[in-house]
Amino acid sequence: MKKLCALALVALLGATTATTPLQQVRRFRQANERALLTEFEQLVAIPNVAADTANLRRTAVFVQGMMQQRGIRSQLLAAPTPGVPPVVFGEVKTPGATRTVIFYAHYDGQPVNPAQWREGLSPFTPVLATGPLDRDGRLASLPAGQPLDPNWRLYARSASDDKAGIMAILAGYQALVTSKLKPTANLKFFFEGEEERGSPHLAELLARHKALLASDVWVICDGPVHQSGRKQVVFGARGDVNLGLTVYGPRRPLHSGHYGNWAPNPALALARLLASMQDSTGRVRVAGFYDDVTPLTLAEKAALARVPNLDETIRQELGFARPYGTGQALVELLNQPSLNINGMQSANVGAQAANVIPTTAAAMLDLRLVPGNDVQRQVQKVIRHIERQGYHVISAEPTAAERAQYPLLARVQPQPGYNAQRTRLDLPIARQVVAAVQATTPDRVVELPTMGGSLPLYVFEQELQAHTITVPVANYDNNQHAENENIRLGNLWDGIETMAAIMLLK
Amino acid sequence: MKKLCALALVALLGATTATTPLQQVRRFRQANERALLTEFEQLVAIPNVAADTANLRRTAVFVQGMMQQRGIRSQLLAAPTPGVPPVVFGEVKTPGATRTVIFYAHYDGQPVNPAQWREGLSPFTPVLATGPLDRDGRLASLPAGQPLDPNWRLYARSASDDKAGIMAILAGYQALVTSKLKPTANLKFFFEGEEERGSPHLAELLARHKALLASDVWVICDGPVHQSGRKQVVFGARGDVNLGLTVYGPRRPLHSGHYGNWAPNPALALARLLASMQDSTGRVRVAGFYDDVTPLTLAEKAALARVPNLDETIRQELGFARPYGTGQALVELLNQPSLNINGMQSANVGAQAANVIPTTAAAMLDLRLVPGNDVQRQVQKVIRHIERQGYHVISAEPTAAERAQYPLLARVQPQPGYNAQRTRLDLPIARQVVAAVQATTPDRVVELPTMGGSLPLYVFEQELQAHTITVPVANYDNNQHAENENIRLGNLWDGIETMAAIMLLK
Repeated sequence: MKKLCALALVALLGATTATTPLQQVRRFRQANERALLTEFEQLVAIPNVAADTANLRRTAVFVQGMMQQRGIRSQLLAAPTPGVPPVVFGEVKTPGATRTVIFYAHYDGQPVNPAQWREGLSPFTPVLATGPLDRDGRLASLPAGQPLDPNWRLYARSASDDKAGIMAILAGYQALVTSKLKPTANLKFFFEGEEERGSPHLAELLARHKALLASDVWVICDGPVHQSGRKQVVFGARGDVNLGLTVYGPRRPLHSGHYGNWAPNPALALARLLASMQDSTGRVRVAGFYDDVTPLTLAEKAALARVPNLDETIRQELGFARPYGTGQALVELLNQPSLNINGMQSANVGAQAANVIPTTAAAMLDLRLVPGNDVQRQVQKVIRHIERQGYHVISAEPTAAERAQYPLLARVQPQPGYNAQRTRLDLPIARQVVAAVQATTPDRVVELPTMGGSLPLYVFEQELQAHTITVPVANYDNNQHAENENIRLGNLWDGIETMAAIMLLK
Repeated sequence: MKKLCALALVALLGATTATTPLQQVRRFRQANERALLTEFEQLVAIPNVAADTANLRRTAVFVQGMMQQRGIRSQLLAAPTPGVPPVVFGEVKTPGATRTVIFYAHYDGQPVNPAQWREGLSPFTPVLATGPLDRDGRLASLPAGQPLDPNWRLYARSASDDKAGIMAILAGYQALVTSKLKPTANLKFFFEGEEERGSPHLAELLARHKALLASDVWVICDGPVHQSGRKQVVFGARGDVNLGLTVYGPRRPLHSGHYGNWAPNPALALARLLASMQDSTGRVRVAGFYDDVTPLTLAEKAALARVPNLDETIRQELGFARPYGTGQALVELLNQPSLNINGMQSANVGAQAANVIPTTAAAMLDLRLVPGNDVQRQVQKVIRHIERQGYHVISAEPTAAERAQYPLLARVQPQPGYNAQRTRLDLPIARQVVAAVQATTPDRVVELPTMGGSLPLYVFEQELQAHTITVPVANYDNNQHAENENIRLGNLWDGIETMAAIMLLK
């Protein structure tokens, strides 16, 4: 015992004089945080929504420039299909290394509706705040000459999802180079430009560049850390597919007085259709919706049981009285397929509302899939459900003949999607990644069998037989996919250390 | 018989040489149609939505100018409540006349969402088209030097509802003056500026100016003529009240993957709530909704039976396969109270849709009332229904305590509204108005006990014990209350003749 205590003392003293590699990484960040923040602000200021192809390309070129400045050999990988945003690819060979780690993030972002952003915010004009603006934060400028407060936040589209991933990975590598630390593996970097569209060309990209993309593990840097603030390693992701849904009323909007209770109202039809899909506990009533789910393994169940349960805290913070389900924890429910209404619209509400019978009503559905589900099969279950409600399902705007023939017409527009994926928790490379992340933090790293969100991990397995492990960096309360998206600066700094640690994995 | 035939022949010959008063009115219009159209275009070019008080005032001043140009003594009548758009009032005394007819129209319009208007159209930039743009019409400029085609249309907000009413009334009077025809009654003009908001200050306006507004009948020039194109005299209108409805999810938008099937989705909640209100035939399932309806009289039932039934034609033109109800005619259903979803929104759909759980979902409901219904009682039935679905109903944004306590929260915002009204079909003044309108057309005038749309007729009866009779001028397919509102020029011209004929009533 005495000997152990003495050794611990030496280690403790050593820590104050010598520096470990991870301490060097932290010092690099501390010494450069303003420059890193400036570069990050430039990155998030470039619009990156799918519809804006010119700016999406500018984003890719900017990211390639970030690689070049760090001495990473880089190229833009094109998909066989023309017009697809390129992958920004980089490579660093480590003499003597036998393993290859490839880091994934994506540079495209979710669509934006600037009108919905809080006053003073604009999706592509990054601004700083002293904390979360929906609680006690306020917009502010950086005070001169003092370290940055890690609780400050940067607000912009993709500040979290997923330009924070790109920044953490490239700054993590920069920290090693600057500190003259040698990675323990060959490193590759793969930054995709179509993730938020459902990665419709990822499979063909992976297939075309198969040799270039050989690796022992893909480290996917996307999504949030645990709600407790603890770092998290995630072994899978749900699959995802969106369905546009439109139902039809009269061909032109009608006066709700002169025609109300005679001409059918599409908003009512849509409400009735959506209501038929789910009960008040969120349980999906589409026939067979839960039938093909692969049960969790014992190891996965055990990991789930170890995940800290903060549901009550989050529920209170989010301001609702009762979650969906019948008492299950959030992490349990995320292992089921889901059906979410992303949005719903018919004519206008509020000050713009007029006394009309609308011509159409539309919704966007989001289906999340778990292992066992198949994306086409899941979509077909929903289409079949719509037909069972008496609808004639069409894939284009209705013709005059269809309008005349069918009392209930629904246009269903499935978008590209993909299946779920889970990596085994006990793979040696998985344990090495967990150990690397654990080395950066005194708090126990959360191991999650699957995240609720989606990543095209299934495609990596299918095309490359590759292992994927997700290591997120963003704060959980980041408003990703919505207005007022933000990143907590401390999460970006921690993310740099996490990524550097993985580049140094044992 | 011979004598009668001879008389008829004389009358027929006379028509080709001498001119009747109504022929003089027509000739005035034919000689002045371009000048009248120019003046009308200036009138509809002034924005007139409730929120834009400055332009609403400009509209009132412009209308007063139109009166002044026609030698009508005019003034702006203020309501006791400050800030209410004034009534534009005018008066013409007819020496020797014992009756007084007061003409009503309104100069305010429904809200506009310019983005929803067809390309090439803008709510307050009137443009002409050769016919209905949703069928075979196309935008065009007036050809020089030939009579205007009555099937052309002018597109702009309030082109029909209800600036066409103002134009028809004032041009009708102008036709008399120019043709040196003497009205048979004292004439008054009352143009309101808050009709589309539900006339919340009409009662106090009528009460304050009671003496000034004494009359034998109010002729309400608003709404469309019959779908057959026949002229129409309407003896009542449904009452109306709007209810804003908002339900709540998490306090901030959440990633639909990380929280989908755990955090409650307000779009689903709203869909379920709206679906609970009506069945697939449009029948309202709110308890007691139809209970207090006053039955139609025998005379009213007989009048309804005489209304031409064009339901099949209209249904085909509007492009839907099955109307609401269980086989009743449109005019029958319009004698029931209704509940219409004017609009519905939660987050975004289409290209702006993101994978989120929205924070709120909102709808605007429109309740139409018939005689026997009471506006407050009808609103309470709906609120009680919402409560029966498990909701806690609030009138403001929910507090943190309310969010924590109630799983289902609905904010209900009733707007100002009013009851229905019906005038007896057999009143002497009613018969005189019908006869005057009938004199302008060889087709039998349609007598409708009530219109489906709403007018604050109830208030006239309550405050002034006045009789109201509605004489509309607009084409039925005018898109009133919606995007692409328009007036068929022929309807405006016919309206001028109708209004002039009523000023000459026997």
